[in-house]
Amino acid sequence: MAEPVTSPATSGSGSIRSVLIANRGEIALRIIRACKELGIKSVLAYSEADADSLPVKLADQAVCIGPARVNSSYRNAHAVVGAALAYRVDAIHPGYGFLSENADFAAMCEQEGVTFVGPASDVISRMGDKIEAKIIARRAGVPTVPGSVGAISEYAEALAVASDVGYPLLIKAAAGGGGRGMRVVQAAETLEKDLQEIMSEAEVAFGDPSVYIERYLTDIRHIEIQVVSDGETVLHLGERDCTAQRRNQKLVEESPSPVLDAELRQGLAGAAVALCREVGYTNAGTVEFVFDNIERTYYFIEMNTRIQVEHPVSEMVSGIDLIKLQLQIAGGVPLELRQDDVVIRGHAIECRINAEDPDRDFAPNPGTIARFRAPGGFGVRLDTHIETGYVIPPFYDSMVGKLICWGQNRDEAIARTLRALEELEVEGIVTTAPLHARIVSSERFRSGDFNTAFVAELLATTSNPTT
Amino acid sequence: MAEPVTSPATSGSGSIRSVLIANRGEIALRIIRACKELGIKSVLAYSEADADSLPVKLADQAVCIGPARVNSSYRNAHAVVGAALAYRVDAIHPGYGFLSENADFAAMCEQEGVTFVGPASDVISRMGDKIEAKIIARRAGVPTVPGSVGAISEYAEALAVASDVGYPLLIKAAAGGGGRGMRVVQAAETLEKDLQEIMSEAEVAFGDPSVYIERYLTDIRHIEIQVVSDGETVLHLGERDCTAQRRNQKLVEESPSPVLDAELRQGLAGAAVALCREVGYTNAGTVEFVFDNIERTYYFIEMNTRIQVEHPVSEMVSGIDLIKLQLQIAGGVPLELRQDDVVIRGHAIECRINAEDPDRDFAPNPGTIARFRAPGGFGVRLDTHIETGYVIPPFYDSMVGKLICWGQNRDEAIARTLRALEELEVEGIVTTAPLHARIVSSERFRSGDFNTAFVAELLATTSNPTT
Repeated sequence: MAEPVTSPATSGSGSIRSVLIANRGEIALRIIRACKELGIKSVLAYSEADADSLPVKLADQAVCIGPARVNSSYRNAHAVVGAALAYRVDAIHPGYGFLSENADFAAMCEQEGVTFVGPASDVISRMGDKIEAKIIARRAGVPTVPGSVGAISEYAEALAVASDVGYPLLIKAAAGGGGRGMRVVQAAETLEKDLQEIMSEAEVAFGDPSVYIERYLTDIRHIEIQVVSDGETVLHLGERDCTAQRRNQKLVEESPSPVLDAELRQGLAGAAVALCREVGYTNAGTVEFVFDNIERTYYFIEMNTRIQVEHPVSEMVSGIDLIKLQLQIAGGVPLELRQDDVVIRGHAIECRINAEDPDRDFAPNPGTIARFRAPGGFGVRLDTHIETGYVIPPFYDSMVGKLICWGQNRDEAIARTLRALEELEVEGIVTTAPLHARIVSSERFRSGDFNTAFVAELLATTSNPTT
Repeated sequence: MAEPVTSPATSGSGSIRSVLIANRGEIALRIIRACKELGIKSVLAYSEADADSLPVKLADQAVCIGPARVNSSYRNAHAVVGAALAYRVDAIHPGYGFLSENADFAAMCEQEGVTFVGPASDVISRMGDKIEAKIIARRAGVPTVPGSVGAISEYAEALAVASDVGYPLLIKAAAGGGGRGMRVVQAAETLEKDLQEIMSEAEVAFGDPSVYIERYLTDIRHIEIQVVSDGETVLHLGERDCTAQRRNQKLVEESPSPVLDAELRQGLAGAAVALCREVGYTNAGTVEFVFDNIERTYYFIEMNTRIQVEHPVSEMVSGIDLIKLQLQIAGGVPLELRQDDVVIRGHAIECRINAEDPDRDFAPNPGTIARFRAPGGFGVRLDTHIETGYVIPPFYDSMVGKLICWGQNRDEAIARTLRALEELEVEGIVTTAPLHARIVSSERFRSGDFNTAFVAELLATTSNPTT
């Protein structure tokens, strides 16, 4: 046996001794835990609706920043920065969602002298503009989906691009996202009409009519690369495969991807690192790609300039605590890790468990947790803020927990996930846990050979009588 | 980055499709989980006192084998084997304690055609005899504590050995264990008297007056090697350092040991493997050593021919599920792992949390768990059978859970342990959790430089005012 491997984990918290956490739910708890391990004081900014939540109990301090409505609390930049100044914290961790990718908020933090745990505001701004992000990617030599480089607002321009790209193609509102403001154009005959319609819709929905055009890929996976950078050293922590989605919402994520070979893996990771270097990225981020199953090639789609919901799968296979790294980098501690220290071991699978009823078209299902029992044991991690007696407020997203299971290989991770899902008990609300068991136990998932349409196809079949 | 490492985890469960679990508490739950992941049916044999326990709820089936008293249930070989035959299981997993190192029980299983998950009964028998184990060790070239080879019952013999060994020396009842039946002899003048007294005591206590004599080591650590063998391939999974003890009861275990260098580690592991080969060992086992801090050398003391309480620290650093391996080996599945596949990564620390009151000389503290909240998050594993409302029966050992925390290095594992201990809430009973926080946060523990007297010394000082 070789000597035990203990990585040169970056230690200390640099200039950060206190952090305001501008978030709620499991990610607030996740950040509190990282702060405690680093000896950083955590101050949780919470809404009135979350006064009785577990993160409020576990944070070192907690401050109510407004009513339940997100625009009055979690998305209220003035309230958040005001609380940070009042509590004299060194930094603000935005979590995901809410203000996490709001460049104006990050700029406000910078102006007020509070460290924003994330990249610089201008980087958020540039990567948040899909067209600019695509231009930056091309400049960095990162492949993008064939299509228009910049925004299009004229039919003649669209026609020229379309003849290069071919049909079917996709028109996307430049300001859209998450599946909103998109249309498939099947043939040249409908291009003009489709263009006018989606531009009108985009104007109404997002206040910006500009669109772009790209090849419509029909057999794709979603694969993303986790990156961390201290501004000098840019590392990647391998990929996450998030192909198991429903209506563009990720349901199951895993690492490594079951479809990549060494060459593709290196290609994706190298592209992600090149993009970070090109834009001067700092802190943790995720570079998202579509992977074309037919051509076995990949295209950059966007960068998330924040921590992601599915970051734990990368933590479980790399052993690296991403939230602690975020805090350390924000505190000016240089990365001690080098790329060779990042070793991906085994396989991890995350199930995002939502309080939704799959039998009622996934209607959110808030309510009181009458009874809750977490699964446990070797290789099982449940990141959740719920406990017996907790009342899920109706104002926020419906995720109640993330079950992340690690195994020596993909088969063991699958077996452990199914065992843990069986052990999980949540009474009082309906959750998507049985759907996760159905997905993960399916032959299709087990084979690794599926695409983004897989969950919809599974849902279209009758329920598996054995589960 | 190198290609992701996925180990050739041994798969399938061989000839075993159902297992009777002859144990209770956290280890019963641990075995149930392993069975579920392997697709093995679990049948839990429980006592009347455990009818409402979590393992009874989670096992596929459960059978009451007798009243609370252990001799009527968990130690009742006939009741256990009878249940196994009635439920037509393929195998019996004994866990630890109870019948797990009872050679007669293992032989009874063999006779009845039920696979005993452990080594052959004659191996249990031979390694259970401390004197024979020592002889086997010497034959395998494994260093043993200088002293008598076989049992001693005459003063003249004792005197001859003592003059080789030197003073102080230790007289140990051959049939004793766990710190019982031992006496330190400071000088030759008292040897005869001490010998007579301890032989009389041993005769009364164990029905066997024979003793052995060995050098009394005063500055020692306890280090053990985890082994697994399928009868052909013998592997080790590195060491566990169990030096933090109170009255020979382990309190905190960790892997790797903070004091071994590569040469000592190889030496210990090689000795453990040689011993297993010598005795024809199969299944999982632990070879225990004392490590002399002064001479920086090690001596074999005994072998535990079963799974140990502290096995999870080895699981957390190796990624290998030891209970699944036990079941697979018992089912005739050859080990696919080779020694080079066993890579120790990071650091793990286990705290054995007992329902005991340190302020009342560690008196057991059974009762009702009024409220229980498990710690969670990255790198935290709590193996426990307790939950809110659970009534701890007064009949069994007082362990309520094992908190195992993994980190990239020892410092991170310590920080995570302290964070998790802070997060743990157990109301209604007194536990040793605060003592664990005191041990793990102490400068002495953090330094890694301590011996088996450390906890007693810590307890003799006034409580740390900061915890």
